[in-house]
Amino acid sequence: MTGHVANFSAGPSTLPASVLEEARDQLVDYQGTGMSLIEMSHRGPHYTEVHNETTSLAREVLGVPDDFEVLFIQGGATLQFSMVPMNLLGEGEPGGYVVSGSWAKKALADAQVYGDAYAAWDGAADSFRGMPSSEDLEVRADTRYLHVTSNETIGGIQMFAWPDVGVPLVADMSSDYMSRPVPWERFDLVYGGAQKNLGPSGVTIVFVRKSVLETTNRDLGAYLRYDVHADGDSLYNTPPVFSIWMVGKVLKWIVAQGGVAAMEAAARTKSGILYDAMAASEDFYRSPVDTDSRSLMNVVFRLPTEDLEAEFVGAATEAGLVGLKGHRSVGGCRASLYNAMPLDGVEALVGFMAEFKADRG
Amino acid sequence: MTGHVANFSAGPSTLPASVLEEARDQLVDYQGTGMSLIEMSHRGPHYTEVHNETTSLAREVLGVPDDFEVLFIQGGATLQFSMVPMNLLGEGEPGGYVVSGSWAKKALADAQVYGDAYAAWDGAADSFRGMPSSEDLEVRADTRYLHVTSNETIGGIQMFAWPDVGVPLVADMSSDYMSRPVPWERFDLVYGGAQKNLGPSGVTIVFVRKSVLETTNRDLGAYLRYDVHADGDSLYNTPPVFSIWMVGKVLKWIVAQGGVAAMEAAARTKSGILYDAMAASEDFYRSPVDTDSRSLMNVVFRLPTEDLEAEFVGAATEAGLVGLKGHRSVGGCRASLYNAMPLDGVEALVGFMAEFKADRG
Repeated sequence: MTGHVANFSAGPSTLPASVLEEARDQLVDYQGTGMSLIEMSHRGPHYTEVHNETTSLAREVLGVPDDFEVLFIQGGATLQFSMVPMNLLGEGEPGGYVVSGSWAKKALADAQVYGDAYAAWDGAADSFRGMPSSEDLEVRADTRYLHVTSNETIGGIQMFAWPDVGVPLVADMSSDYMSRPVPWERFDLVYGGAQKNLGPSGVTIVFVRKSVLETTNRDLGAYLRYDVHADGDSLYNTPPVFSIWMVGKVLKWIVAQGGVAAMEAAARTKSGILYDAMAASEDFYRSPVDTDSRSLMNVVFRLPTEDLEAEFVGAATEAGLVGLKGHRSVGGCRASLYNAMPLDGVEALVGFMAEFKADRG
Repeated sequence: MTGHVANFSAGPSTLPASVLEEARDQLVDYQGTGMSLIEMSHRGPHYTEVHNETTSLAREVLGVPDDFEVLFIQGGATLQFSMVPMNLLGEGEPGGYVVSGSWAKKALADAQVYGDAYAAWDGAADSFRGMPSSEDLEVRADTRYLHVTSNETIGGIQMFAWPDVGVPLVADMSSDYMSRPVPWERFDLVYGGAQKNLGPSGVTIVFVRKSVLETTNRDLGAYLRYDVHADGDSLYNTPPVFSIWMVGKVLKWIVAQGGVAAMEAAARTKSGILYDAMAASEDFYRSPVDTDSRSLMNVVFRLPTEDLEAEFVGAATEAGLVGLKGHRSVGGCRASLYNAMPLDGVEALVGFMAEFKADRG
């Protein structure tokens, strides 16, 4: 764990140590200019280079085709919950939503403000224990898009098979962004906040099909229009310089690790170790979600009692394993294993879990 | 200039050297936790402390009364151009706009998407050379608010007398935020991006009267509702942690310098030196704006020819005086003298201007 504690926080979350150290070394005097990059004009040569490089890296890492724009927008996935329907849903065009958990619910609620949005499936009755298959979905005629949440950070479920229902997909990929390849031909738009797999909070990366931009709603304020961001290369107004700079560094780190293929393999290894340890624990550590939807990013688990859970989280923190408390809305425990979580962090956690069970089990 | 170059950039812009150095020292390991603050949960104790402290400091520095909320929102002033009318303008309620320059024009254009917004005054015919007086304004009956831009960054004009027209004011204070006191009884809402006087880009501080929140529009996506941000203490979704952390540091620096009163006095001194030098230059350096509207924050000036202006900016850059090029939409030169610009930076500029004139004048 390279001197660092192991940080299992669900977001903002752990960053590669080398990225933080490089940022520290460059923060006060950027490339001998006598200024910090965060003090410079966003239209000057130094930031322009960072901006363009981050854009290119985002394309490279996720294999984004030329017919998609890359946009950096503020406001998190939460602002996208509004921007997607207000830009994409024309008069009377329905938008279908896969309600797979807390985030999807919020996306649908905001979409219903702006258009004829409906739940094509709702996992609430089943406590959001798993993702649906295509056959489970009820998609209305003329549906403009089907919105999916590729990974539910709170519920700890992940969508491994993209729905095939004859309409373009729009995906919130905030919590598994750039941890696996994207079949772009299926998508009109993909978005996600940076603060889990890609950097600090403060910027959301949106990939939108260029042909979609030809028909988006123009009757919106400038910041809320995808076409305005696209026409301005995400520099219509002052961008969140520090966040984009850091995302560029994390993307370079991903490339150096072997790209998305390496991130995906690592995610399988890391989550596999943890799920295996749970399976071997004779139900002391228990996953509340369906086997085939278990997230590689957010591993949620329960202990026999809430008291034991609280004790576990406290003792883990003392052992340098932090951020293991489950989301306040569902309780329990959660280990987030984003791209920057090193394998030895997960090994330390599994070791600690065995010890804790031996002591208290 | 403490080893730094003098950075006259209009935004993002110069930060106090001590703030950058402190951020550098804390970036990798925050308070011995083994983690960076930007890696931590925004609901954990460390960020909570930073968040609450920054909120308190913003109140303290600007003397904000208890009946105002302090909100941290992403998207810059540009998103506020939409949020203000969509939240505040009820059915059929007009919003008046003082069109004093580029930024006010954008604010009005976005407001017209969402409501019955109109120009209560327009300085375009006069090339945005000055701010209007109250008598110049034409305010319609039942106007909900009068929107003003306290300082036009591009035109280099500042509003020194707040309009008194019998309706509450809403102000975009992005480019002179916390450089002078605010008479709160006159305002319903004040907003501004941090990236000029208060920190890096990525966060906008909104002060909104609590009673206004009782009647704002609820038929909006969550991120676009002031009441949602207020109810969540600006933590409805993940905040831009780094930007808010830095704003807190800059606010502490402002307090240590003597607060807004000291910032205002320094702004008068710094801009005074520069305007005096221009006046003494026998029209070699010439202000294109009205005497009584000349900004203390963005001093725009022209030289006899555009060639000389280009030469001036180039030679100044070589002399360590950077960011002096005027905005691309108006040309000329501009020295931005935000809170963090030290006096010796302005003195160096004035010295350089005298030398340049002696050589080329």
